Amino acid sequence: MKKKIKKVNAAILIIGNEILSGRTQDKNTAFISYWLNTKCGIVVREVRIIPDDEKIIVKNILFLSKKFNYVFTTGGIGPTHDDITAKSISKAFNVKYEYHKEAYKILERYYGKKNFNDGRKKMAKLPSGSKLIYNPSSAAPGFIKKNVLSLPGVPSILNSMIENCKRFLTKGLKMHSKTVNLYTVESNISKQLELIQKRYKKFVDIGSYPFFRLGKIGVSIVTRSSSLIKLKTVNKDLIRMAKKKKIRILNLN
Amino acid sequence: MKKKIKKVNAAILIIGNEILSGRTQDKNTAFISYWLNTKCGIVVREVRIIPDDEKIIVKNILFLSKKFNYVFTTGGIGPTHDDITAKSISKAFNVKYEYHKEAYKILERYYGKKNFNDGRKKMAKLPSGSKLIYNPSSAAPGFIKKNVLSLPGVPSILNSMIENCKRFLTKGLKMHSKTVNLYTVESNISKQLELIQKRYKKFVDIGSYPFFRLGKIGVSIVTRSSSLIKLKTVNKDLIRMAKKKKIRILNLN
Repeated sequence: MKKKIKKVNAAILIIGNEILSGRTQDKNTAFISYWLNTKCGIVVREVRIIPDDEKIIVKNILFLSKKFNYVFTTGGIGPTHDDITAKSISKAFNVKYEYHKEAYKILERYYGKKNFNDGRKKMAKLPSGSKLIYNPSSAAPGFIKKNVLSLPGVPSILNSMIENCKRFLTKGLKMHSKTVNLYTVESNISKQLELIQKRYKKFVDIGSYPFFRLGKIGVSIVTRSSSLIKLKTVNKDLIRMAKKKKIRILNLN
Repeated sequence: MKKKIKKVNAAILIIGNEILSGRTQDKNTAFISYWLNTKCGIVVREVRIIPDDEKIIVKNILFLSKKFNYVFTTGGIGPTHDDITAKSISKAFNVKYEYHKEAYKILERYYGKKNFNDGRKKMAKLPSGSKLIYNPSSAAPGFIKKNVLSLPGVPSILNSMIENCKRFLTKGLKMHSKTVNLYTVESNISKQLELIQKRYKKFVDIGSYPFFRLGKIGVSIVTRSSSLIKLKTVNKDLIRMAKKKKIRILNLN
């Protein structure tokens, strides 16, 4: 029997000048991270946003693919001149950038032979030896080469493809998370929180995030752990602290 | 007379587990990038999102502050145990992490002597020699140490402080941008776009982004240049191309 890998991590590489310039708000990071976390037990440890620049893409692919179990790229796999992700990954891994037979067929069928022009054909050019990540919404596939999974930048299309990544991924230990919302300010509980964090340092991560709701200020205390039992113990401590300090608790989940 | 620096660049370092886990959608990247671009002529060349981990913060601060003219950090400057940005920057630059007199006074005045507890005092501890970035909405200041500007993670507070960063920044050459929206698909114009991009390679960046509006598919062609004249020429070429291909133009700006 295969032993379950305990910790599986990933990085996300967002490729696109439009994100760096502030023209477009990136939504893919939150979507991919949350999906990896909740569906695959994979923790995203770093995200980078970089321009459509071959040298920079190559450098980052090499670095991140060595450092993390998986790298997810978004953007740059369309038909235009600024779509250079597949070509850059080929360079990074020193393999040919060539037509992928199956991708070519899928795209040719989708567009029809007559309309299958050079721009559309370009989307079938992938790093040699890539496997396809099927695209149910607009045909042009994503691909995986080594431990790098490349997805499109348009969120609705990316979202429709994410489940097709699953078969390429080794699942990690599921992370559990709980949130306690308190009607107080961070500085009123920072000392106690630090003590609780120290007590459970090895097992539970505690984060503290201010919120504003209906004109009231509060703090969301988010706890994360691979052990549900440890998580419940910490949350009991948090509630005990709140009651002792006469802080109103908003809700629990 | 001082010569105007032509190209000024920056990196953004988003510090926070809540962004990496997908719990919170980062909005600060788009806001800061757009502000730097349009108000300061500063181009963001890289964004990194990293966890609340001292070693990782130190490493990234050192790397990015050497590589870019400015580094903007967001997050980790509040009163709780997971707020370790100021401490980590002190380590990175090998300076003391100590009370900043003015920050201490501002916070003491804001909370009142009686309520100025340890958590709140922590927000006055900064890398030695920091200058303050004033905070009009909740007192706790940001700070600049060397070329690193540290801002809070809560978008509404960050937004209220951004103008106070201006006096620390050298302005770059203003970048102009135009968008032409065409009712077509990318693969229908990719060849022509590539030719136009090649013609103006040195002066203008052309990006192509699909959009979906009221059930119709289109492409936004975004051109960026420091020369308004060059930009207008390229946009004339784009419109000529659209007319030749009988593509409907949505609007121009």
